[in-house]
Amino acid sequence: MSIRAVRYKISASVDDLGPRPVLPLAHGDPSVFPEFRTAADAEDAVADALRSGDFNCYPAGVGLPAARRAVADHLSHDLPYKLSPDDIFLTAGGTQAIEVVISILAQPGTNILLPRPGYPNYEARAAFNNLEVRHFDLIPEKGWEIDLDSVEAIADKNTAAMVIINPNNPCGSVYTYEHLSKVAELARKLRILVIADEVYGKLVFGSTPFVPMGCFGHIAPILTIGSLSKRWIVPGWRLGWVAICDPKMILQESKIATLITNFLNVSTDPATFIQGALPRILKNTKEEFFKRIINLLTETSEICYRELKDIKCITCPHKPEGSMFVMVKLNLHLLEGIHDDVDFCCQLAKEESVILCPGSVLGMENWVRITFAIGTCSLLDGLDRIKSFCLMHKKKIPLNVI
Amino acid sequence: MSIRAVRYKISASVDDLGPRPVLPLAHGDPSVFPEFRTAADAEDAVADALRSGDFNCYPAGVGLPAARRAVADHLSHDLPYKLSPDDIFLTAGGTQAIEVVISILAQPGTNILLPRPGYPNYEARAAFNNLEVRHFDLIPEKGWEIDLDSVEAIADKNTAAMVIINPNNPCGSVYTYEHLSKVAELARKLRILVIADEVYGKLVFGSTPFVPMGCFGHIAPILTIGSLSKRWIVPGWRLGWVAICDPKMILQESKIATLITNFLNVSTDPATFIQGALPRILKNTKEEFFKRIINLLTETSEICYRELKDIKCITCPHKPEGSMFVMVKLNLHLLEGIHDDVDFCCQLAKEESVILCPGSVLGMENWVRITFAIGTCSLLDGLDRIKSFCLMHKKKIPLNVI
Repeated sequence: MSIRAVRYKISASVDDLGPRPVLPLAHGDPSVFPEFRTAADAEDAVADALRSGDFNCYPAGVGLPAARRAVADHLSHDLPYKLSPDDIFLTAGGTQAIEVVISILAQPGTNILLPRPGYPNYEARAAFNNLEVRHFDLIPEKGWEIDLDSVEAIADKNTAAMVIINPNNPCGSVYTYEHLSKVAELARKLRILVIADEVYGKLVFGSTPFVPMGCFGHIAPILTIGSLSKRWIVPGWRLGWVAICDPKMILQESKIATLITNFLNVSTDPATFIQGALPRILKNTKEEFFKRIINLLTETSEICYRELKDIKCITCPHKPEGSMFVMVKLNLHLLEGIHDDVDFCCQLAKEESVILCPGSVLGMENWVRITFAIGTCSLLDGLDRIKSFCLMHKKKIPLNVI
Repeated sequence: MSIRAVRYKISASVDDLGPRPVLPLAHGDPSVFPEFRTAADAEDAVADALRSGDFNCYPAGVGLPAARRAVADHLSHDLPYKLSPDDIFLTAGGTQAIEVVISILAQPGTNILLPRPGYPNYEARAAFNNLEVRHFDLIPEKGWEIDLDSVEAIADKNTAAMVIINPNNPCGSVYTYEHLSKVAELARKLRILVIADEVYGKLVFGSTPFVPMGCFGHIAPILTIGSLSKRWIVPGWRLGWVAICDPKMILQESKIATLITNFLNVSTDPATFIQGALPRILKNTKEEFFKRIINLLTETSEICYRELKDIKCITCPHKPEGSMFVMVKLNLHLLEGIHDDVDFCCQLAKEESVILCPGSVLGMENWVRITFAIGTCSLLDGLDRIKSFCLMHKKKIPLNVI
């Protein structure tokens, strides 16, 4: 079941006649909240591209040349080498970037290593393409670092790649330079690709700075997935990319650029006028906009962490430092009449009109993912309702046990 | 090789330093010509949806409810029954509609029947999904009608569906009511689905009116593919749909709606604000706009047919009555030093900066597809250059033969 299907199922539990607004704490899309409105410069750029009439045409399969160049320059800024426009492939959002990457890796017998917990579109796409999936763990006690031993234990000669998500969805963690460097060394040892999902790139607000995985491209080849969706708060614009970060040109022999091109030539594209606007969006969006968003996420993540501490039946192992989420454990033994995480989310939706994402869809049963990236008042309201719900369902301890 | 890859290959033959503009007669996208500018109402609707800020969010997997309803109403207008919003699935252009349909039909052992000549994205997608393809013929001498006997000859119990394209790409033909009704009867007999690719729907300018295949939904179930791309001249907007036209609900048992939903839930979407604009686009676009486009296509198709008659080494079996194309035969025995259709197109691109689509990529070797949907002056120029090219390469008949 896809994450969308689960979300719709849980939303269907909401009592439509309830007096209170539904609070969407299940997905990373705060765009409906006025304080998270995208940058005016970005909106202007798209409107102007549309109004020019120059971008009603089909785009090139891999993206407009000027847009590819803009992404190459944008990403090169934070890398120790320069990407060329030929390294960039525009996609219709991060979603299509995942489609492309999984499809080109799906050869008979091949397997791919995915994180647990993770983002289930990888699993869903792998299933569509008959690509074998093996899971490695993220360790909650170690700030959700990758269990590198578990990666090594499951890899074999048929392993094509491992996926890392940084800043992390669903955990809200940010990997250090040292940890990423170990990931790269391991990938080199295993002779595999790293697919670096950086859809939440630069959305960090803790002590760990964001380091693009591409910084380690000289150690192992990296395919970086990125998008406007999260940093510009416009998931509906459907503009993403795959970047080949491979300064040693190790991938050249595998013709990966040709495989990506062939796939995109028979696939849909991001709308041409949004591609046309991309150079201006990347160049002109003001630092104040990004600061405003980071300030908002700093505030909401802190509210979330603080309020969750008060809820006995929920354990938060790690304060979120990036992305829009936190992953928390349900202490079901403290709750009455709640069977599992899906049941928790369905009952919560029904009784309190709050939507959360059950951990089982992300690979961790009896955990839940909470997004804090919504308006502050709504977040406080949502956490308050979760608190009430937990109190209401608190297990009564029989007297003879006390 | 995809149609895009072939087009890029042929375009690469153009002498970039040539004195004359490159004339794009290879694909159905006249949007760069000012006379084919889209309707102001449509552009306004998209700009307003963008500016509202209400549509920066993720869309629902199968499309915004209001947009699905708008498409259902729009299509129902020409059908003997009413489609419901639940019958409509929004896709990122016709391209993604093909992805969806091919993917859900691709079960082990299944086959699909495709027209020859046809639109090669069907073949490419089927190859990606390991879906067996069998071809039936379109008959040039019969106005490119479907050879129904050849359909029956290749179908078997593992056949899931046949694809028809009407108005036809690449042939420029339009199927009569009678012919479509025979297609439906045959589909009923064979117990298969009809996939009706109506991306060029309503773009007709001959004596045969456009009849949606959905009109025969009571005979056999139909999946109709449509899009804004061609009729509104905005292929870059990437907004299409799949409509289940099945008034007898024969498909309900096969859960096809669930299959489509599951696929779209893990796939990319059309940009949300373009979906948000769709109700206004479908409702407000004025009849004058459509008339203007049809008048232009009437004029250009007539110019094209008339000028082609003058070229000895090209035979046009049927005057185009719909879509944006005409399919013509190369009489290679009249030409010197041209090996095949791809060679013809590459040499033409090199010497005359005119891009045509070679028939071999559409399933018919030594034919070419010519688009007439470009500005009139450019079209006249292009046909003139093709004429010069053919004269220049005319085979010299040895004196002893005369």
